[in-house]
Amino acid sequence: MIDLAQALLDGNRRALARALTLVENESEKSEPLLAALFPHTGRAWVIGITGAPGTGKSTLVNEVAKAYRKLGKSVGIIAVDPTSPFSGGAILGDRIRMRDLSGDPGIFIRSMATRGNLGGLARATRDAIRVFDAAKFDLVLVETVGAGQNEVDIVRAAHTTIVVEAPGLGDEVQAIKAGILEIADVLVVNKADRQGAAHTIHALKAMLEMGHPSSRAGMLNHHGRVMQIENGTPADAALWIPPIVQTIAAEGKGTDVLIAAVESHRQHLEAHHELAQIERQHLRTELYDRLRDSLMARLLQTLPPERIAGLVERIQAREIDPQSAVQALLSGN
Amino acid sequence: MIDLAQALLDGNRRALARALTLVENESEKSEPLLAALFPHTGRAWVIGITGAPGTGKSTLVNEVAKAYRKLGKSVGIIAVDPTSPFSGGAILGDRIRMRDLSGDPGIFIRSMATRGNLGGLARATRDAIRVFDAAKFDLVLVETVGAGQNEVDIVRAAHTTIVVEAPGLGDEVQAIKAGILEIADVLVVNKADRQGAAHTIHALKAMLEMGHPSSRAGMLNHHGRVMQIENGTPADAALWIPPIVQTIAAEGKGTDVLIAAVESHRQHLEAHHELAQIERQHLRTELYDRLRDSLMARLLQTLPPERIAGLVERIQAREIDPQSAVQALLSGN
Repeated sequence: MIDLAQALLDGNRRALARALTLVENESEKSEPLLAALFPHTGRAWVIGITGAPGTGKSTLVNEVAKAYRKLGKSVGIIAVDPTSPFSGGAILGDRIRMRDLSGDPGIFIRSMATRGNLGGLARATRDAIRVFDAAKFDLVLVETVGAGQNEVDIVRAAHTTIVVEAPGLGDEVQAIKAGILEIADVLVVNKADRQGAAHTIHALKAMLEMGHPSSRAGMLNHHGRVMQIENGTPADAALWIPPIVQTIAAEGKGTDVLIAAVESHRQHLEAHHELAQIERQHLRTELYDRLRDSLMARLLQTLPPERIAGLVERIQAREIDPQSAVQALLSGN
Repeated sequence: MIDLAQALLDGNRRALARALTLVENESEKSEPLLAALFPHTGRAWVIGITGAPGTGKSTLVNEVAKAYRKLGKSVGIIAVDPTSPFSGGAILGDRIRMRDLSGDPGIFIRSMATRGNLGGLARATRDAIRVFDAAKFDLVLVETVGAGQNEVDIVRAAHTTIVVEAPGLGDEVQAIKAGILEIADVLVVNKADRQGAAHTIHALKAMLEMGHPSSRAGMLNHHGRVMQIENGTPADAALWIPPIVQTIAAEGKGTDVLIAAVESHRQHLEAHHELAQIERQHLRTELYDRLRDSLMARLLQTLPPERIAGLVERIQAREIDPQSAVQALLSGN
């Protein structure tokens, strides 16, 4: 394992691929590897990109990766597919992407699907970010399909979170925004040339103003012009207001502006000493997650399986309720 | 708490509302309540309804509820909104629904949003199902917005899972289906009068055939005719093949066929003794979830907060890796 870690730190791509497979499979072997890599982490900038299906998120991720490559930055992409608990989905997106980005040694793409266990995907994503980080990638883009709570947990491992919207996705999507907006550092209206784009931007502005009543959102169109919202007042210096960036990812338009917005968010966090605080929060969450898993693993080692099976039967017969069964197990009765 | 439980068992609606609030808030008080209610549970049929935004899922849930009411069944509805970790989304859907269904004492609707903690919503939903069950509701409809892993976990508490699709939601939605299909007991193509419906049905059939190669899916249109797929062979008696039901929920078309499909699934489970097995699996999952939570709560009671904070600082300084920190905590060093 130390050999694998050293090869990865030395920039060996096959070692990177193998390490990513180990963390994706939540293999036992991944723990010593992660421990060996950990001192070499904390440098990469992690960008979470999320949004509803149909927003053109994958195309946007490609364009963002290409734009960072032009700036000489190396980019790791983790395409997370929580909608595919068993198989299939992630591979499709991967294949489409590979056609476009393959052959560039400064880009490495990995798709990850759940194996069906709750929280497993968020854990594997967190560890994969760390692997890319140790392999000295400047940026890690974490893309999630969908916009549920799990995606929220996944992008919570990011430094900058981009939420992608698009015109004309119906009223139900509107309802989604309310929640997802609160995690956005940068908002993108992709397919900005489509009918209804003005309406989408208007709705986002209205929601941002509700969420940040003390100031007004700045807005960038895909030509890079900053458009101040009517009666705009300068934002509080310490308060980050998510800018709204318009893109047409399919034509490569607006991604330079988007990257400028990400860099501006990064400078904001660094200037206001928020970065260390964010990292501390991430590590704290990780410590709790790992504690929970280790406690459970330790208990299950000491419990005979037939003890659990017997209790489940008694619960099913309504002889004991589930929480009382837990207390019986923990008190050793 | 015993008074609240008794009032709920006696059919008091205010007690029901209060109990649902207790479980949604994951209040300490909910535990004795749930323990008191538990012996009176295990009767309700739980239907999970999920699908991507834009499929018209909420309208369909309304129609299903109304159709069951016509059959004299009482219906509890839990509208779960995992996309709203903080506020907002769930309430919107609730209000729209209330206009349509309010005033009927045989229907009770509760929206639930996450409070931001992973797994909390799935737990609260599980407990809310139990509250409705104890309050003698014949059916509990659990609707989730979106189609991510969390939704999958939520509908795993159901007896019958309905996955809703609709024509023309784009290619990315297609990718979602691969994963979500595997949890479907009944497939619905809503908005079946829309352009592209035939294409959607065709794609679903193709996926079903990949998933169930030993036989062919039966298909019901919204007039209730069973359409055998070309070269259709009779399904293995013990194997349930998800039927594809076409609906136009906005016009109330096809819901009677959908309900017939649900009832047919129920009879299948009962006839093949799969029901007890499904319940045992649900209870086992619950026991594990509760064990994990109780173990963590017990540990945190014994750990001074500054011990955790000190370790997080050392992790951040890269003096110790996260898993070694866990081992230090658990070994008491």
